[in-house]
Amino acid sequence: MAVDRILTPDGPGPSARFTESGSAAEDRASVKAALAWLTARRDAHTFEVVQVPFAELQEWSFQADTGNLGHHSGRFFTVEGHRVHTDYGKVPRWDQPIINQPEIGMLGFLVKEIDGVLHCLMQAKMEPGNINVVQLSPTVQATRSNQKRVHRGSSVRYLEYFTDPGRADVLVDVLQSEQGSWFLGKRNRNIVVETAEDVQPHPDYRWMTIGDIQELLRLDNMVNMDARTVLSCVPFARPTGAPPPGPHGEFHAGLRRSMAPEEGSLHPTRSVLSWFTDTTARHELRTERLPLNRVEGWHRTADTISHAEGRHFSIIGARVTAGSREVLSWTQPLLAPHGVGLAALLVRNIGGVVHVLLHARPEGGFPHGIELAPSVQCTPDNYRGLPDDHRPRFLDYVTGVPRERVRFDAVQSEEGGRFHHAECRYTVIEVEEDFPVEEPEGYQWLTLHQVTGLLRHSHYLNVQARSLVACLHSLW
Amino acid sequence: MAVDRILTPDGPGPSARFTESGSAAEDRASVKAALAWLTARRDAHTFEVVQVPFAELQEWSFQADTGNLGHHSGRFFTVEGHRVHTDYGKVPRWDQPIINQPEIGMLGFLVKEIDGVLHCLMQAKMEPGNINVVQLSPTVQATRSNQKRVHRGSSVRYLEYFTDPGRADVLVDVLQSEQGSWFLGKRNRNIVVETAEDVQPHPDYRWMTIGDIQELLRLDNMVNMDARTVLSCVPFARPTGAPPPGPHGEFHAGLRRSMAPEEGSLHPTRSVLSWFTDTTARHELRTERLPLNRVEGWHRTADTISHAEGRHFSIIGARVTAGSREVLSWTQPLLAPHGVGLAALLVRNIGGVVHVLLHARPEGGFPHGIELAPSVQCTPDNYRGLPDDHRPRFLDYVTGVPRERVRFDAVQSEEGGRFHHAECRYTVIEVEEDFPVEEPEGYQWLTLHQVTGLLRHSHYLNVQARSLVACLHSLW
Repeated sequence: MAVDRILTPDGPGPSARFTESGSAAEDRASVKAALAWLTARRDAHTFEVVQVPFAELQEWSFQADTGNLGHHSGRFFTVEGHRVHTDYGKVPRWDQPIINQPEIGMLGFLVKEIDGVLHCLMQAKMEPGNINVVQLSPTVQATRSNQKRVHRGSSVRYLEYFTDPGRADVLVDVLQSEQGSWFLGKRNRNIVVETAEDVQPHPDYRWMTIGDIQELLRLDNMVNMDARTVLSCVPFARPTGAPPPGPHGEFHAGLRRSMAPEEGSLHPTRSVLSWFTDTTARHELRTERLPLNRVEGWHRTADTISHAEGRHFSIIGARVTAGSREVLSWTQPLLAPHGVGLAALLVRNIGGVVHVLLHARPEGGFPHGIELAPSVQCTPDNYRGLPDDHRPRFLDYVTGVPRERVRFDAVQSEEGGRFHHAECRYTVIEVEEDFPVEEPEGYQWLTLHQVTGLLRHSHYLNVQARSLVACLHSLW
Repeated sequence: MAVDRILTPDGPGPSARFTESGSAAEDRASVKAALAWLTARRDAHTFEVVQVPFAELQEWSFQADTGNLGHHSGRFFTVEGHRVHTDYGKVPRWDQPIINQPEIGMLGFLVKEIDGVLHCLMQAKMEPGNINVVQLSPTVQATRSNQKRVHRGSSVRYLEYFTDPGRADVLVDVLQSEQGSWFLGKRNRNIVVETAEDVQPHPDYRWMTIGDIQELLRLDNMVNMDARTVLSCVPFARPTGAPPPGPHGEFHAGLRRSMAPEEGSLHPTRSVLSWFTDTTARHELRTERLPLNRVEGWHRTADTISHAEGRHFSIIGARVTAGSREVLSWTQPLLAPHGVGLAALLVRNIGGVVHVLLHARPEGGFPHGIELAPSVQCTPDNYRGLPDDHRPRFLDYVTGVPRERVRFDAVQSEEGGRFHHAECRYTVIEVEEDFPVEEPEGYQWLTLHQVTGLLRHSHYLNVQARSLVACLHSLW
């Protein structure tokens, strides 16, 4: 930094260029080619994931005193016990296993201007828990252990663009949380850097426009969670030009207006922040770390740790053999959810501007207790046999909504490095004109512009809401 | 909220009115009257604070298994053990006692327009640890226990303006952390609400302009920490009119320019946020809760829990007898720091705009590990007998700076409800023209406008930095 550097006004930054890259999917051929490449990379590698008893996990074991499941090196993550006390919701106290991975990982997009348009260097990456095994992933997806080579495998490709000064400019850089029901205080650095250098090509990596990535996002299980969360943090500017042709012209126009601060919002941002503060302050959410062998209502066998009623998830052991990850073969625990999740975003045209309905939701693993979640976020199977009033608000509305109200619908995988076949249906529903604008307690309508502003900072939107923001951005 | 409510553009909000209230201290008589009132309130009440052995604490005791010091009701707070591992700084690991008070309290200013200018209803409040015993405090200063009357004392006066819908408009509302070296994840709601109602007067409360409060802030131990942190979150607009007369005209003009986004900054806000993310992600800060009886390097006697070398602080017992608090007499533990703290803010004119030098500082009790601290924050006594390279950066600069560079200098008390005589010297120093603009690692120059933007959100500025922001705002 030069001493005599001129003071910088806070301009719009790279927003317009991101939007241009997002609008650059006119060419269907490029999407088809990307899909073919992803399939070819899947075929080019061998991989096998089999469930094994805990006793066959190498270098992983249950600690004698606590029953916590950890790696001998003390690194990667541990499975521990967690007790949550809260006055929010129907259940005042519960115990559960939870993944404790306190280090901050990096999810990074390397971008570069090619023919005047920003392109992202996307990776065809195998992860053991993935449906489809290989999914479209950020350029770099590295835990701190990866970065320090605790795997004793190869170093992380392209990491130097994110760590070495002068190799790239930072366009996006923010810590965001991950699943608060499964991870204890986990957060990752979501980062986008732009380089002007010639970047060494590699067959597992491909330059794609954001528009191309967004097209793949509409397909099931193609774009991984890490890529989705980074995409959600990209501060798109309001697109210029005509919206895409199709039956939902007014919706698309309202979505574009929603990206523009000058169009106004139902609640000023000051009120949104105060509502978030109030909801956090008004409720109690107290958590305790427990030894895993003291967790009530869960049982451990030779093969799994499971909930007594078969709800929620199990912890299992897995043996992975692969040719495209850091090392060729390893074993590890995975968290295997029971049932497909549902993350639904209700959106509504209010005064010509599309608003999204977010829910201030407590999750035991969040460092602050509450983050903003989709309008509905649950695993419907968990509610079987429970009284009707335990069912989440708007769940029945979403499951019964007519097809023509659905603007986005795809099944996506959650983090395949820790979760086994964790699928979630992501859906965006435009509610009917007489749907109430008045929000129930704990819910609020926000514009996309407000959401983009919150996503400059940590711990406002949870990972499911961020995935839906990425999906919504694929629609303009 | 009406369904047909018009969409709101995100306007400047109440900033200009706050600035007007801050500029309204022309009348020295009003400051003198406020001081006289504060003295009178001090004289009107009886209070006595004496140190007692732990055995004389009523309803407080050490748990048999953990040695943690807690209240029989399970409420208020506990003194527990805390172990910190970090690669940031010179000490890779330490143990310490820490105050665990997980509930979110409220620090609230009730404001009202009187003769066209916003006035704050300030309280003359006794707290057991205060120097001067009675200090100027927010209208409401309530733990959740207070609000639920666990004290079995009177309810909190004026709380209804902050909790009952429709009584007041929210102008500021954000959760902020407190001392991360003494509190485990403590945070309070900093809130300012404006009412148009007639407010019932009470002799312990007084309507004051922000300018009057700022004048008292220049005196030692008059404005308590809770009032200072709320003041720091007030989003002042750039003042209009001429700066105050005096020898530092260019400084005052640069300070006013620093409040205006259009004047630019050394680093764009996007870079500031990325620097914050990078610093947080790059360092390790891992903490563990420990039983207090397993804390290494600290000793418990009948009267105190103290560090083996006499550094840092002690935990003591206190008996309080008072006529102006919720109940007349009680006992409680207090944390008694050893030595007066120092919180110094280096400020520098860069391109005509005053910038403040903030330090990304880890503290074991912060939920995110790092917050922005003053340029220097330490208790100088803690470094006696240690090698020179353990001394904090800029400490020697600050202690040796010539008097004419000091723009603010006052000793202030930290939270008197938990700390005993915790004094800290708050000082703002305008560095000389050849002071480097280049920042050492972990430091960055920000404008006041950028600081104000960060203070809309939680966990960016620590409580000492916020106190200094409040002090700095008393200078324009």
